[in-house]
Amino acid sequence: MKKLLLIGIGPGDPRQITYEAVEALRRTTVFFVLDKGVDKDDLVRMRRAILERYLPEGGYRLVQVADPCRDGAATDYVEAVHDWHVHRAALYARLIEQELAGDEVGAFLLWGEPGLYDSTLRILDLVRARGVALALEVIPGISSIQALAARHQIPLNRIGEPLTVLPGRRLGEQPRIDNVLVMLDGQCVFADLDDPQLVIYWGAYLGTADELLVQGRLQEVKGQILAMREAARARKGWIMDTYLLRREL
Amino acid sequence: MKKLLLIGIGPGDPRQITYEAVEALRRTTVFFVLDKGVDKDDLVRMRRAILERYLPEGGYRLVQVADPCRDGAATDYVEAVHDWHVHRAALYARLIEQELAGDEVGAFLLWGEPGLYDSTLRILDLVRARGVALALEVIPGISSIQALAARHQIPLNRIGEPLTVLPGRRLGEQPRIDNVLVMLDGQCVFADLDDPQLVIYWGAYLGTADELLVQGRLQEVKGQILAMREAARARKGWIMDTYLLRREL
Repeated sequence: MKKLLLIGIGPGDPRQITYEAVEALRRTTVFFVLDKGVDKDDLVRMRRAILERYLPEGGYRLVQVADPCRDGAATDYVEAVHDWHVHRAALYARLIEQELAGDEVGAFLLWGEPGLYDSTLRILDLVRARGVALALEVIPGISSIQALAARHQIPLNRIGEPLTVLPGRRLGEQPRIDNVLVMLDGQCVFADLDDPQLVIYWGAYLGTADELLVQGRLQEVKGQILAMREAARARKGWIMDTYLLRREL
Repeated sequence: MKKLLLIGIGPGDPRQITYEAVEALRRTTVFFVLDKGVDKDDLVRMRRAILERYLPEGGYRLVQVADPCRDGAATDYVEAVHDWHVHRAALYARLIEQELAGDEVGAFLLWGEPGLYDSTLRILDLVRARGVALALEVIPGISSIQALAARHQIPLNRIGEPLTVLPGRRLGEQPRIDNVLVMLDGQCVFADLDDPQLVIYWGAYLGTADELLVQGRLQEVKGQILAMREAARARKGWIMDTYLLRREL
């Protein structure tokens, strides 16, 4: 069985990585880096910076590949994601078979937490279903929502209450927003909400030198967030942001 | 202003701590350790083990105090928690004023993630409201729910769906359970559910030498979990566990 590590490397700050993750980096001989295209070059560079910081002596191979794109125009979201997973599974199976020898240890470096809105575990299930035997190990990492709460110095939950984490596209369906963490909201759904009691804690590029933070009443600051977000995206070519919406008691 | 660090130290495994957290440990001169009583001695010992591992040269003070107990019999949960916070705020304010000099750096070592079902941030808000000026810094940590997902090698969320995290006492109120992470369930609410489609991923003492893991259809394994839980609690005097309930698709 080939050995594969899924290593959570935190939200961007190379110090927000665990000792367990760095031990895993040091056991790895082949790193698989899936490149999402030119405007995400920063992310590839940030990953390389982590490797150079913790493995200055080298001794590993970096296998870099173009990641297949998901069909953003598909009408059925779950089906489109599944098709994308199937394509990625074929790619990953080929990479693992061709690039990873039996005595080597492969690894995927995953931003944030491997269990939170990351598809690598599901894709590797499909790789196994194709007949590739894998021994996996998963190493947790600090998620951007944890970095967000730490920077704003707020608890993620209200006292004794449930906490909801969701992707932006599901925000509109919520019957009532009391305390919701939103990830992956490229459409800025927060800007469509007109509830005067909501407070927003927003952050982008958390843990990096470009970090942006805004907090305040949603109706008062949403314009500022939209403008900052657009300017940052124009300047850097990409943006990763997350936010907490909370109803004031 | 006195400087205080809230340091997330992960779920129990001393390797599941970030480099940022260890840097914070090294800046600290006074650690405040709130002792919950005799059956939680293990937790105090585990914290000391982390300090000895990362600060072998010493150079810090440990201030250990008995934590006031919360009124478990109170009928209004939120009010009881608030009263408890007020008591703890008075204690923390006294500790900070008496034990922390102006040029020192104090720290609380918090299990898991400081933003997730931990009251220290709220108590320090009350301390500030009493007129104690504080410069805070919050350092995220790996939560037990992340350790749980990593050990079971499962994603926390289903594809594109919301994720709910809640304390055990709120589980009974959920109109429908699709994918729920439960923390702090001393009453074993999961055992009262009779839905045949639910799968449970359970873990206790995650990241420690006593770690226990069970996964399976809830109706098939709930008896086993109850028995393991009771035996472990009798042996060790305390238990910390968490679980994910997921409806099979």
